[in-house]
Amino acid sequence: MTTTPPATDTDLPVSVADVRAASKIVSRAAHRTPSLRSASFDELLGGSVWFKCENLQRVGAFKFRGAYHAMSRLSDEQRERGVLAFSSGNHAQGVALAGKLLGVRTTIVMPTDAPQSKLAATRHYQAAGVRGSEVIQYERSEITREELGAQLAEERGLTIIPPYDHPDVIAGQGTCALELFEDAGVLDCLFVCCGGGGLLSGCATVAHAVTSGKCTIVGVEPDAADDAMRSFRTGELHSVRDPETIADGARTPSLGVNTFPIVRALATEMMTVTDAELIEAMELVMTRLKQVVEPSGVLGLAGLIKMSRGKWGGARGDEGEKWREAVRAKRIGVIISGGNVSPDRLATLFGAGS
Amino acid sequence: MTTTPPATDTDLPVSVADVRAASKIVSRAAHRTPSLRSASFDELLGGSVWFKCENLQRVGAFKFRGAYHAMSRLSDEQRERGVLAFSSGNHAQGVALAGKLLGVRTTIVMPTDAPQSKLAATRHYQAAGVRGSEVIQYERSEITREELGAQLAEERGLTIIPPYDHPDVIAGQGTCALELFEDAGVLDCLFVCCGGGGLLSGCATVAHAVTSGKCTIVGVEPDAADDAMRSFRTGELHSVRDPETIADGARTPSLGVNTFPIVRALATEMMTVTDAELIEAMELVMTRLKQVVEPSGVLGLAGLIKMSRGKWGGARGDEGEKWREAVRAKRIGVIISGGNVSPDRLATLFGAGS
Repeated sequence: MTTTPPATDTDLPVSVADVRAASKIVSRAAHRTPSLRSASFDELLGGSVWFKCENLQRVGAFKFRGAYHAMSRLSDEQRERGVLAFSSGNHAQGVALAGKLLGVRTTIVMPTDAPQSKLAATRHYQAAGVRGSEVIQYERSEITREELGAQLAEERGLTIIPPYDHPDVIAGQGTCALELFEDAGVLDCLFVCCGGGGLLSGCATVAHAVTSGKCTIVGVEPDAADDAMRSFRTGELHSVRDPETIADGARTPSLGVNTFPIVRALATEMMTVTDAELIEAMELVMTRLKQVVEPSGVLGLAGLIKMSRGKWGGARGDEGEKWREAVRAKRIGVIISGGNVSPDRLATLFGAGS
Repeated sequence: MTTTPPATDTDLPVSVADVRAASKIVSRAAHRTPSLRSASFDELLGGSVWFKCENLQRVGAFKFRGAYHAMSRLSDEQRERGVLAFSSGNHAQGVALAGKLLGVRTTIVMPTDAPQSKLAATRHYQAAGVRGSEVIQYERSEITREELGAQLAEERGLTIIPPYDHPDVIAGQGTCALELFEDAGVLDCLFVCCGGGGLLSGCATVAHAVTSGKCTIVGVEPDAADDAMRSFRTGELHSVRDPETIADGARTPSLGVNTFPIVRALATEMMTVTDAELIEAMELVMTRLKQVVEPSGVLGLAGLIKMSRGKWGGARGDEGEKWREAVRAKRIGVIISGGNVSPDRLATLFGAGS
């Protein structure tokens, strides 16, 4: 697959009008999360930073926005039949809670080795929701979730709610950037994590539109999962398989048919950070903002810190100074995407030997 | 020292009018911290809970309120000469930041074995403040901080800003309860941690006044530092020496001459919790509210959980059912007092073997 940047934004699968419309729906159920400031952070970074805290969103992550929005827009018949999602993470919980709130039966496909805490949280929402909602577990070695999901959806007439590659999901995720711009006013730069690109696409759509293209939009991936950066640079869709990184929310194999053209057209830069840089960023958020964040949740911040130190060389490898200038003394938005990390896991990440 | 509960609240060292006056001053510099809600928490506890998040206060703890208020009320001459505080914890940072903001020179007495992070944070505020502000370290084995502090204060003409036992400090701490009641409306119960009793006294003053004595006010201490509970029960001032608990902010030896009569007159109950109960409460706050909290910061919540399970027997030991009823299906405020805990320390608290 190859894309050329579209002539105008209206050629893209999602417009800022779509996000504004989504916002009317999403705000009925989602929390309006705070845009936190920290004087000591500003001092450290030499700029003014607004942290959009989606760790404080329902289910502990931005994923609730897209799931709720997409499920709100189903036809009566689709709602009647129910929905299906495959996810072992935050998307599963988002769909399960949205199903409970909207009265839609949910079927969630999860591997047998998914963390017990995620399984329990998903079942908890389902138990309080529509009768017949369930988690279906599968053996990773026997079948892929896509195969099992497609098979179940067809047999049972369920609508699949994809984790990122759908215009309604993307528009839903973008609502968090609308709120951020309302709180912060004009921003010169916006840093967003990137897995499958749903959050990045939605936020980029907003940032590009409300600043008339003046906002520097940066998507940030783990080093080991640099598929979106490579796709962004080459115009061809690259993928990774089971990348090793602590940022479990960004292990997605590739961008999708909806997110790829948006990221390619609207992101100013795509960059990567190491696991060690993620841990440093988590520590800063925990000590300065007192917020619990998961490793994927601080990808954007880790990218900002790296650029501010002149350590991001860009595509040519020697553009550290250019990118340092791009974030110096600027008004900067950072999306903190989620906070679903257990104290046990934190102990492992910050424990002896890490 | 023995006290009899005063005939009227006006006999107490601090009135709600004092707290209201303090609020006008404190709000100039302190953050108005959020009163967070959590649907899953409410479900768990079978009530409606408002968490007043002083972990999001400047310096990461409520202590800034009292320090700023007390230092704002000094005479011009006292300000000119400067202030002294002895603390290795949050009070030191509160005084150092207030000194910077108010242009008052600060001298902070700390033991040589104080954590480097606390030392660094205090010096950081001083460095940006009035010239001559400094930390003075002492050997615990050679001199007590009270002796050294008194000696230095006299030699240099400095005014001591006590960590809790002063009407202006108590009134300052109470401002957080004023905000909580503004956010939540009427509360049936209020849970507050207790070390030296400054926060508890200030909050109890507010809760008692705005509910005309109808609010059940509970102060919570660590099991190992139950001096305030014993003082509350007997009417005589008890003390503890170097109690072993993870709640380092509540290792204070005893209530003071100002806080004792207020706690005795206005608290409905004083209770204690174990370190294991504190760790469970920290885990709940981290996973449900996504807030970083220090062990002392969740004393109030740990007390509430214990009561809600019928596990607090009261003075007679057999009043579990009575206290369970007292918190069932109620509107409850909980003060989360601070969030100054490093990821390293969290790793130790939640790591293998804990």
